[in-house]
Amino acid sequence: MNTYAATIADIRHATERIGSFVHRTPVMTCSTLDERAGRSVFFKCEHLQKTGSFKYRGATNAILKLGAAAKKGVVTHSSGNHGQALALAAKVQAVPAHIVMPSTASAVKKAAVLGYGGMVHESGPSLAEREAKTAEIVAETGGFLIPPFDHPDVIAGQGTACLELLEDVPDLDAVIAPIGGGGLLSGWCITAKGINPAIRVFGAEPSAADAAAKSKAAGMMVRIATPTSIADGLLANHLGQHTWPIIRDNVEQVFTVSEDQIRAAMRLVWERMKQCIEPSAAVGVAVILSDEFRAVANVRKVGVILCGGNVNLDKLYW
Amino acid sequence: MNTYAATIADIRHATERIGSFVHRTPVMTCSTLDERAGRSVFFKCEHLQKTGSFKYRGATNAILKLGAAAKKGVVTHSSGNHGQALALAAKVQAVPAHIVMPSTASAVKKAAVLGYGGMVHESGPSLAEREAKTAEIVAETGGFLIPPFDHPDVIAGQGTACLELLEDVPDLDAVIAPIGGGGLLSGWCITAKGINPAIRVFGAEPSAADAAAKSKAAGMMVRIATPTSIADGLLANHLGQHTWPIIRDNVEQVFTVSEDQIRAAMRLVWERMKQCIEPSAAVGVAVILSDEFRAVANVRKVGVILCGGNVNLDKLYW
Repeated sequence: MNTYAATIADIRHATERIGSFVHRTPVMTCSTLDERAGRSVFFKCEHLQKTGSFKYRGATNAILKLGAAAKKGVVTHSSGNHGQALALAAKVQAVPAHIVMPSTASAVKKAAVLGYGGMVHESGPSLAEREAKTAEIVAETGGFLIPPFDHPDVIAGQGTACLELLEDVPDLDAVIAPIGGGGLLSGWCITAKGINPAIRVFGAEPSAADAAAKSKAAGMMVRIATPTSIADGLLANHLGQHTWPIIRDNVEQVFTVSEDQIRAAMRLVWERMKQCIEPSAAVGVAVILSDEFRAVANVRKVGVILCGGNVNLDKLYW
Repeated sequence: MNTYAATIADIRHATERIGSFVHRTPVMTCSTLDERAGRSVFFKCEHLQKTGSFKYRGATNAILKLGAAAKKGVVTHSSGNHGQALALAAKVQAVPAHIVMPSTASAVKKAAVLGYGGMVHESGPSLAEREAKTAEIVAETGGFLIPPFDHPDVIAGQGTACLELLEDVPDLDAVIAPIGGGGLLSGWCITAKGINPAIRVFGAEPSAADAAAKSKAAGMMVRIATPTSIADGLLANHLGQHTWPIIRDNVEQVFTVSEDQIRAAMRLVWERMKQCIEPSAAVGVAVILSDEFRAVANVRKVGVILCGGNVNLDKLYW
């Protein structure tokens, strides 16, 4: 038996731990989407979570798990949803949050982190420079590094959304989640399989950022060159040490979709479900609407996460 | 005592009549909006109603009220949300729906009505031409004219949304709804005052389409010249014979907002609540955010309807 970074017991403990701090988000359905998918689809609305993404769950769980030690602060380098989530989760727990952002990050993203009460530290734009700056702040403050996905408590926190979904719709045949570094999908694997091993778990990835699909195909963790996609929450070039074994063993298949499929799915959700989701959240929907997934047999009811809703409304994506 | 087109008993009957055909839409809250409003705001999500607007309630109630006679068909001239709502409501009840649309109506709007199973009849663009064509079809088919707002069963149907809101949040101090011809606001007046006369009722109108505000100020039904607003669901140039007395006697005040205020409120709801609402639905939110409404004393909890979500996603409104 494999030993993974998190167990179903960890997910249940995380649910109790974070319960009073996170929104229990609704599960939506839409007859138009059902028709186009050829089956019943249940949308877990984490774009309605605090800070506009599921990342708030993992961030809150990781901070609470630290207990009193968290008072020294938490540190990460993420200019996206994890950075914002960690900033607010820390503020709510009265813990300092240090968010390292490259000098090239947009003013909007810096303002969002500052708005949630985080401290922004500027670094050079390369990953090496961002990591060096992060290490420096950890050393200076004695704070704890909370990475965006490859961390047991982050993985367990993300799984809590799947637990709620399965409480609301217990007879799902399958669940689908998008993959960047795999923190969300890992948490969903542990949860779904821990509750009922018969539930099938699928991954959803942009073709232009397909580290997980390539890794599954190769049977080993593959690093890809620079991923590029409008789904900017999924731009990891490899899975993590904690997430890869979970995904390797529990995910039946990773489906990839084109940028056009992502845009079309996003527009459909805006138009028909009236939900402003971000491109990353449209990736799972695009898979559900694809011919490849429609051809998968014996999936009557499928659950998918709308993972975030943080979009730049200065422009349209299509 | 005045005799109005609908009573609280009519609203309760309408609720029973349409209950199995309409969505019971959720009530949302948002801490950012609460902060900016200076009070607790409860959003009744009728943009998530079938056909994307509350109009489906009134249309369904009017058709069901006709009983077996409805088999001859229903007729209206509306290229907007009422036309779409009547088309689908009729389809669900296996009743023919004739929707008169001006030759100038967009292909998108025609396609929407056709998609819901309605028959589209083209007329000349003027109101007189549309009314003449409508009368012609009523005469030919023996069908029933269901106007968009000035009809007792339509008014009662729209009130059912307020009844659900007050079941979910019984201790509201006030409710606000936008006004076009006043069908929605009339239904909300009858419902709120019928449940608790202490609940205050306010109206919300674009400054550029302010027939109700002018009527309230004059104490008599005022016709305005061509109304113009991005809130295209509210472009009536006068209230109705049924709606005006109800609004005259039960609405405390009609607040008006500028096009810029409407755009800003709409964007805020998209950005923070992640809900794609149409401009007409942003008018009530814009009032709640206005200095004038913030200055109204003794309103701790206010309910507002997000009345529709049918937007053209080819462009942005700001």
